[in-house]
Amino acid sequence: MTTNRALTLFLVGALLTTGVNLRSVQSQTAPPAAIDGFTSEGSVIQRRWEEEFQRVPAPDSAREHLRRLTAEPHVAGTKEDYATAIYVRDKIRSYGIPSELNEYDVLLNYPKQPAVVELITPRRRLRLAVKEAVIPADPSTSNPNIIPLFNGYSPSGDVTAPLVYVNYGLPPDYAALKKLGVDVKGKIVLARYGNSFRGVKAKVAEDNGAIGLIIYSDPADDGYAQGDVYPKGPWRPDSSGQRGSVQYLFQAPGDPLTPGRPSVPGEQRLKMEDVTTLTRIPVQPISYGDAKQLLEPLAGPVRPDGFQGGLPFSYHVGGTESIRVHLKTVMDYKVRKIWNVISRIDGDAEKDRWVIMGNHRDAWTFGAVDPSSGTTAMLEAARGFGQLLKSGWKPRRSIVLCSWDGEEYGLLGSTEWAEEHAAELKQKAVAYLNMDSAVSGSRFGAASVPSMWKLIRAATRHVPDPKTGKSVYQAWQDNSREGRPEADLTNAESGTDTSIAEARIGALGSGSDFTPFLQHLGVPSSDMGFGGDYGVYHSAYDTFHWMSNFGDPTFAYHVTAARLWGTVAMRLAGAEGLPLDYRDYATQINAFFEESMKTAKRRNLANGFDEKPMREAIQKFSEEAARTEKARRDAIEESRGARTDAKLRRLNDALIAVERALTDGRGLRGRTWYTHQIYAPGTYTGYAAQPLPDFRQALEDRNTTNAREALERIVEALNRAAEVLRNARD
Amino acid sequence: MTTNRALTLFLVGALLTTGVNLRSVQSQTAPPAAIDGFTSEGSVIQRRWEEEFQRVPAPDSAREHLRRLTAEPHVAGTKEDYATAIYVRDKIRSYGIPSELNEYDVLLNYPKQPAVVELITPRRRLRLAVKEAVIPADPSTSNPNIIPLFNGYSPSGDVTAPLVYVNYGLPPDYAALKKLGVDVKGKIVLARYGNSFRGVKAKVAEDNGAIGLIIYSDPADDGYAQGDVYPKGPWRPDSSGQRGSVQYLFQAPGDPLTPGRPSVPGEQRLKMEDVTTLTRIPVQPISYGDAKQLLEPLAGPVRPDGFQGGLPFSYHVGGTESIRVHLKTVMDYKVRKIWNVISRIDGDAEKDRWVIMGNHRDAWTFGAVDPSSGTTAMLEAARGFGQLLKSGWKPRRSIVLCSWDGEEYGLLGSTEWAEEHAAELKQKAVAYLNMDSAVSGSRFGAASVPSMWKLIRAATRHVPDPKTGKSVYQAWQDNSREGRPEADLTNAESGTDTSIAEARIGALGSGSDFTPFLQHLGVPSSDMGFGGDYGVYHSAYDTFHWMSNFGDPTFAYHVTAARLWGTVAMRLAGAEGLPLDYRDYATQINAFFEESMKTAKRRNLANGFDEKPMREAIQKFSEEAARTEKARRDAIEESRGARTDAKLRRLNDALIAVERALTDGRGLRGRTWYTHQIYAPGTYTGYAAQPLPDFRQALEDRNTTNAREALERIVEALNRAAEVLRNARD
Repeated sequence: MTTNRALTLFLVGALLTTGVNLRSVQSQTAPPAAIDGFTSEGSVIQRRWEEEFQRVPAPDSAREHLRRLTAEPHVAGTKEDYATAIYVRDKIRSYGIPSELNEYDVLLNYPKQPAVVELITPRRRLRLAVKEAVIPADPSTSNPNIIPLFNGYSPSGDVTAPLVYVNYGLPPDYAALKKLGVDVKGKIVLARYGNSFRGVKAKVAEDNGAIGLIIYSDPADDGYAQGDVYPKGPWRPDSSGQRGSVQYLFQAPGDPLTPGRPSVPGEQRLKMEDVTTLTRIPVQPISYGDAKQLLEPLAGPVRPDGFQGGLPFSYHVGGTESIRVHLKTVMDYKVRKIWNVISRIDGDAEKDRWVIMGNHRDAWTFGAVDPSSGTTAMLEAARGFGQLLKSGWKPRRSIVLCSWDGEEYGLLGSTEWAEEHAAELKQKAVAYLNMDSAVSGSRFGAASVPSMWKLIRAATRHVPDPKTGKSVYQAWQDNSREGRPEADLTNAESGTDTSIAEARIGALGSGSDFTPFLQHLGVPSSDMGFGGDYGVYHSAYDTFHWMSNFGDPTFAYHVTAARLWGTVAMRLAGAEGLPLDYRDYATQINAFFEESMKTAKRRNLANGFDEKPMREAIQKFSEEAARTEKARRDAIEESRGARTDAKLRRLNDALIAVERALTDGRGLRGRTWYTHQIYAPGTYTGYAAQPLPDFRQALEDRNTTNAREALERIVEALNRAAEVLRNARD
Repeated sequence: MTTNRALTLFLVGALLTTGVNLRSVQSQTAPPAAIDGFTSEGSVIQRRWEEEFQRVPAPDSAREHLRRLTAEPHVAGTKEDYATAIYVRDKIRSYGIPSELNEYDVLLNYPKQPAVVELITPRRRLRLAVKEAVIPADPSTSNPNIIPLFNGYSPSGDVTAPLVYVNYGLPPDYAALKKLGVDVKGKIVLARYGNSFRGVKAKVAEDNGAIGLIIYSDPADDGYAQGDVYPKGPWRPDSSGQRGSVQYLFQAPGDPLTPGRPSVPGEQRLKMEDVTTLTRIPVQPISYGDAKQLLEPLAGPVRPDGFQGGLPFSYHVGGTESIRVHLKTVMDYKVRKIWNVISRIDGDAEKDRWVIMGNHRDAWTFGAVDPSSGTTAMLEAARGFGQLLKSGWKPRRSIVLCSWDGEEYGLLGSTEWAEEHAAELKQKAVAYLNMDSAVSGSRFGAASVPSMWKLIRAATRHVPDPKTGKSVYQAWQDNSREGRPEADLTNAESGTDTSIAEARIGALGSGSDFTPFLQHLGVPSSDMGFGGDYGVYHSAYDTFHWMSNFGDPTFAYHVTAARLWGTVAMRLAGAEGLPLDYRDYATQINAFFEESMKTAKRRNLANGFDEKPMREAIQKFSEEAARTEKARRDAIEESRGARTDAKLRRLNDALIAVERALTDGRGLRGRTWYTHQIYAPGTYTGYAAQPLPDFRQALEDRNTTNAREALERIVEALNRAAEVLRNARD
């Protein structure tokens, strides 16, 4: 590592003025070497701005944002939701950044009345509470505006039938039940939350012929088996249920009435009967206190392996006539207004290149973690940017800050915006940086396209971790090591210690607002946050009180999230040559392919297609990525920090166009809204990514025709991407 | 496969007369090829005897044995235990086989009164029931002779101290507690059963300074989380506890007063204060109904990862002054008489070569599964042998049937007998075939020295599985496949289907009577049985009623166990050339070594010793094994079935001497009673084997000096073994 005396001195000077102990972090871990994408001189200037930026976010200010944002439940489309939009807009304007509301008219459902869930046995009829208890220590929990337990986009329904317990409600669970001779056709199924997105559970239940779905939170998954329950601890107490959307997000997010098109006046809307992304069976969440009443009396066979949860009896699968359930949901469906808040800092040299930061604002109840911790981080980052602007900071590119609405129903605000501005975004978007539940604890985690791995890791080296006093990077590595068994920390073959291998940055699946950007438009995207023991997800207990007692009592991690998010954005907005490295992307695609080939061989499908073109395409992409990286470094040096440089501009445009080239306008099989050939949520994995989605799915389905076609499209995409890189250097 | 028309016809004829459908099994799976160890002609004759033998064991007869053996609780040394010895002796005599009692005087403890376990909080003092409830459906459970819940070889004690929950009570658990700042010194610890032998828990508790140990059965491990509880299902109900010995079995089994020497009149006995294989802190088992009372109020930190069990609250580790426990055990320690029953069928040609079948007879209560299912199988096998003898069968070698006493306290009967006859056994023992809990369900499982793998697999091909109508072999393979994930069933590298890979035969650790034979004397040994959902281990519910409802309602698996055990014994007793294949042994030792080397490399210990001599020794042993195997096959053919053949005799003697050569009279480090260099129970693994024990332990301890020395002794043993094989061929 080279040292830069001027920078070091600056840092020491700067650090003396900040309350947080940044110094030890910097001296331990931050090499005063160039920041990737900047000349040496540019790096010094950039670091100075970053330091000034990082001094702005503050715990008291963050606490106050969170207090205000969580004052009332603010479900998408409600007046309380509107009030938070105004709060965010006005705050950002007060920092000197232009900010505007941006409306869409979208389909939303609210429960007209609390759901009815009744247990019917030969001897009794028992109506379950289906209500989260008031907790005296937490004043929010007695708020009369808390929306009853319900699922977004569940239809109204009134069904009575025998009950079957279906574990997580995924295809292997139904297969296990079938093996036991238990059929769910015409029955109501009881699934537990976990292992996939709840919309998948609804789809699979419906596909299997169930006429109703009840989803409960098993104490094994986020209740007492994990630790003390609220208010004694951070985990889910026995009356708590998980709200949430059951949209078929894996087919298309956004307003179900306008798939692929923006929900603006004049756009045609589907009739309800033509909508294909919503379930037709009523779906209802309940607590484990209630679920116990249903599960304990169940007869039928003892549960198969993997079905037992944390309630204190042997689970049975039911399906007998003796234990029936009455489920009634009454929904108020309407097209309603939602409000994004879009704020812009214009770029100095490249105003038409946008670095987008996004986070949703709507919540199922108070949403302290989900999403207000993210909104708080965005507001504190905006406050930091505002201060820099006053000091004369001029980012090379524009920064767009987006506070999304309607995310909880199915990424509505972000999707409609991305659909409305699709053409412009394809041309102008440099990257999309998402945060959602930014803080529920202190453990850093990230997912992104591989081209952003180095950028994210580098930024975490320049932000201090409050708990350890080390850098976020170091704390992240330490946490990651801690969880791994000894055997994983070494390469057993060679006996070499691989414990220095870096913590993994995950693949983007879905479940938050990066989806329209990455998977519909092909914009390089990331998602980050600090996680912890968080058992109150989508419940009435995701409150300011919870956050103040468990998630982030000092609000230091809200500050840290703002610092980190802002630093990544500033680097993308300021870099002379964009720090997007496609060598990592090539390596990752190769790993995905190797993994898929194992499955293909295991299932004797490998003879059904030719793997050679794929290997060649990966190789070619990899080579072009390496050449482009070298060209970028050379061009940065040659540019000598010039504000405009044609060669760099061409390279930079190529570096964002590569991701676009990985999309295919024909879309994925059976879900054309998803166009990205490398990343999509799996049809059954839900939140989790299914890399090389169509190829992978074809292997799952043991369909070699589909596998061949999917591979061809991936190869085409890789060749397009390689071509984009090659052309940029000509 | 070659077919043998004469044999096939014989089989078809024979099978028509048997009630069980043996025919389909034979035609599907049994190749009428030669049985390993026999000439073609010898095979035909042997199969005829085996068929006649297999027709004898019968469900009604097995049911009657089990009913008689489980009529009363029969703890070692009691008059009820003596009555079962007489029953076994007289039954075997009635089959025409000489049988005698064989007494030893050993130290045993009984509880003088039920244990006192009290919870003491600032507000209350609660005495736990510590008593298994009467279950009206099962008449045995109201028997007044059921011994109270207690641990064999727990001392008397009366202690009061704060309580700490220590999970499974093994070293990593105490390390996790230390990390939380919780010290158990001077405290009483509460451990759950599982993951190791309970004597290990006692040793580790004492080593950590605890002054008392309570062990409970967590419902996650063998209670409701596994399935329905007794009497609705086979799992442990909430008042049930697990009795059992807390002897330091991993140091030396047998009478604690005479380690390494037989407990016969005239032998010197240790004074109690000189005994090193017993714990000095009181140990007491309780039920999860009782444990709930202690665990639920515990304060202190929330449990570390892996500590949570199946009770419906968040476990805390305790250690605070507010929750204390009073534990009082009052024991009646005395030297008491136990009674083995030894029965002998003299060999025709090689009377001085013994094939030993063994199974214990003493039980903590009724012992339907443990051990009476094994005793039943032995009695039915004996009945079969008796019938063959009447038909003129003359086994080449002697068969010795041993019904052991005092196994539950620490393998007392078998160890004292093996110690008394050590010299003779070293010379004469061909193999030791153990059964213990022969039947608790229908899933076959086996553990043995690798030289016996082929023999066991071959025998299972010739015994029908009652449930499936296939062979035991096929049912075993199918069960084994079922549990494996898809990825395990193929070789991902090559894509080839390895699903035909055979089910694993395990390594012998300890916890039953094979230990003195294999690990003290070096006699090739095996252990087999049919397992199932068995949650009443060592409880008052291990009864005839439990077996009749869950374990083996038709008693068909008792019959199957008798057939299989007898068939293996008959092959060893009848073979011209002993079917012991040391090529598998070499392969297995190599795999153990590779596995250990991974650990060594991971821990950077591999430079502390030279692995080359070990690799050479394995290679040499492997080559000698291959040459010997060829020589054996040739010699069998050359002998043409001669009743005596010097060359074969020499080879056969070598084949049993190899195992002896793998022992080292100096014994293992710190536990000289254990002499085998390849197999021993681990000091902390308890029941489970720790292969290459001293080498492996040295790596665990990161002690390269010990590792080097251990490896040298293993190399010496392997070289001795190779020499034995080489000399036999000269």
